[in-house]
Amino acid sequence: MPQSPATQHRLDPARETAILDAIRELLAEVGYDRMSIDEVARRARASKATIYRRWSGKPDMVAAALHGLMIDHPPLPDTGSLRGDLIAAMTGFCRVYERKQPIVLSLLAAIRADPSLGRLLHEHVLSTGVTETAAVLDRAVARGELAASADATTLVEVGKALLWHRLLLSGEPLDQPWVIHVVDDVLRPLLGVADR
Amino acid sequence: MPQSPATQHRLDPARETAILDAIRELLAEVGYDRMSIDEVARRARASKATIYRRWSGKPDMVAAALHGLMIDHPPLPDTGSLRGDLIAAMTGFCRVYERKQPIVLSLLAAIRADPSLGRLLHEHVLSTGVTETAAVLDRAVARGELAASADATTLVEVGKALLWHRLLLSGEPLDQPWVIHVVDDVLRPLLGVADR
Repeated sequence: MPQSPATQHRLDPARETAILDAIRELLAEVGYDRMSIDEVARRARASKATIYRRWSGKPDMVAAALHGLMIDHPPLPDTGSLRGDLIAAMTGFCRVYERKQPIVLSLLAAIRADPSLGRLLHEHVLSTGVTETAAVLDRAVARGELAASADATTLVEVGKALLWHRLLLSGEPLDQPWVIHVVDDVLRPLLGVADR
Repeated sequence: MPQSPATQHRLDPARETAILDAIRELLAEVGYDRMSIDEVARRARASKATIYRRWSGKPDMVAAALHGLMIDHPPLPDTGSLRGDLIAAMTGFCRVYERKQPIVLSLLAAIRADPSLGRLLHEHVLSTGVTETAAVLDRAVARGELAASADATTLVEVGKALLWHRLLLSGEPLDQPWVIHVVDDVLRPLLGVADR
């Protein structure tokens, strides 16, 4: 069970899960601004007093809900080649972020009004995956596919930016031909691995 | 004056500008869903009949408003080097997209409900700049800085994705250190120009 930095009182795990599920549902359905604690309490069959004993307010509740979402971040498999690993990683990220899209979309407008939400989104959604990607690159160095360990942070920055741009703005599908385009035309050239 | 594909009746240019300005204001203030033709008419001091003679409906009006926004797309200057050109181009894009951010944000939720808006956003905002960037790359080839003409489409895709990701999601500033990071750590390595 994830720890919120502002943990005040522990709840029964099933109760806490029900509340976090209600928050995620409401974020996706009505957005951050129109999400009310009353409605969270109603859906989770919890009292408002219970909710306020556990979280200090909406930003804190949303942070916990986002943190919980990160649990389903996929492990990055060892496919035996850098190209295979990158395709598997990008495909895994696509599936996770497709699921997060309604919540992220609902937070975008709220972030402008409350910058603390932007920091939470950054911490729980945007800046994840660097450790896992660094392991992918280390494996490629060990195999002799990469000359030296490359910059996993920039690689993740570029991969996620392309993913979110396609998901939120262009609206085109996160399908396999697109994943292969990103790996072969962007990520591998960035790593200096240009041959197919 | 931009031509809308669904042009039905021409308006007096000053009147048309007032209506498009009202559309852009309302998109940024209340969003696509809550933008009413009544309010557009009130702000532009035009009749609804006038508006409906010119545009078939909200998607068509928004397309014209987005098209008008593209007029301020910056020319990409010849600074004498590929690195200088890329920094100037990325800086110019940053200034333009900072101004578009409220409108794009207001359209994001509407795009899910009306895919035709996504196509309009793509046509008028996302897929622009490739011709200008191809000219930047052609100049670099002519100077002997690039071995062969590189793929301007992928370069624009990556640059814009990083820009929108930072502008909409991470909320960090589109400042000069970040522009230089993008040019030196992403765009030039993608072009195979790795030395500083």
